Amino acid sequence: MSNGGPEIEQLIQLLARLPGLGPRSARRAVLHLIKKKDQLMVPLSAALDRAVDAVRTCEVCGNVDTRSPCGICSDPRRAESGLLIVVEDVADLWALERAGVGAVRYHVLGGVLSPLDGVGPEDLSLDELVARAPQFSEIVLAVNATVEGQTTAHYITDRLAGTGVKVTRLAHGVPVGGELDYLDEGTLSQALRARTEL
Amino acid sequence: MSNGGPEIEQLIQLLARLPGLGPRSARRAVLHLIKKKDQLMVPLSAALDRAVDAVRTCEVCGNVDTRSPCGICSDPRRAESGLLIVVEDVADLWALERAGVGAVRYHVLGGVLSPLDGVGPEDLSLDELVARAPQFSEIVLAVNATVEGQTTAHYITDRLAGTGVKVTRLAHGVPVGGELDYLDEGTLSQALRARTEL
Ligand SMILES: [Zn+2]
Ligand SMILES: [Zn+2]
Repeated sequence: MSNGGPEIEQLIQLLARLPGLGPRSARRAVLHLIKKKDQLMVPLSAALDRAVDAVRTCEVCGNVDTRSPCGICSDPRRAESGLLIVVEDVADLWALERAGVGAVRYHVLGGVLSPLDGVGPEDLSLDELVARAPQFSEIVLAVNATVEGQTTAHYITDRLAGTGVKVTRLAHGVPVGGELDYLDEGTLSQALRARTEL
Repeated sequence: MSNGGPEIEQLIQLLARLPGLGPRSARRAVLHLIKKKDQLMVPLSAALDRAVDAVRTCEVCGNVDTRSPCGICSDPRRAESGLLIVVEDVADLWALERAGVGAVRYHVLGGVLSPLDGVGPEDLSLDELVARAPQFSEIVLAVNATVEGQTTAHYITDRLAGTGVKVTRLAHGVPVGGELDYLDEGTLSQALRARTEL
């Protein structure tokens, strides 16, 4: 069997380790890269080289950027709202930024408490969060609405109690455009309890 | 909105152009690469660099490899069967090699005839195929069982008529492990006509 030599085989195996790609789609991706060598493979190779050199984790908030402190932590306008949004990972930070939530700052926990997976408080950036807290007027816990996320939110609320900073969480409710009969009962009953006047 | 600087943004945009990845999965892939910088991002960057330098298209058959003629065209044992298998693209060649079809040689057409997409005979490696044909005892047209594939097969059969080489195509039938009620009627009726004795 010949898949085009060790260089191609290794590229397939590395791409197959990306989330959402398996061996089959990695092979298709590599063939596409080879077909579009000048338009795609060469630029991707260069972009990866640059990213390897440039990307770093922000020492303040845990965001990824090409500088530390990151662009968000370096922007003085983002201090004015007094809001610090706590997220599980950088993907959630990016999602909130895409949603245009405004000039806020973030704190990336690096995960959620999960005794079954061996993730304890010492594995998350909780000491850093407690140390940053007094600079803000409100801390919004934007963790996922999973059991682990909610356990983590309670634990953080306890840890922040001594700081006197107001702690809130994202509202539960019906997603915009969501159809009621696709929602679980917990969401529906929370949405009913938190109903607002028109 | 901040997605971590232009280096990261460009990497996302390039990865989003791979088949099977969109903007969302490209972002997840980039975050995964950053998280696994030493184990995945650095090796992938190096593998791409090496592949950009090493990969070439075989001047004989159109396969991709790190040398031309490719490993398959350079292997004298693959001439013994006298079989040349004609495929639409390199992905099909790789699929046949994975299936272990034996010591054969290939010819990659680079597509199929498709007047609607502006693909004519001059866009495929047909002259090269006619020139290679006399070296083989049988040419198997392993093009896809689509309308374009079958049109291309007929066109090739006509072009090869003058060479005197035997031209065959892959058998139609029920895929191994395939369930009958998921197959279209054309496949089923062909499978019945080509039934074999047990
Ligand atoms: Zn930061
Ligand atoms: Zn070749």
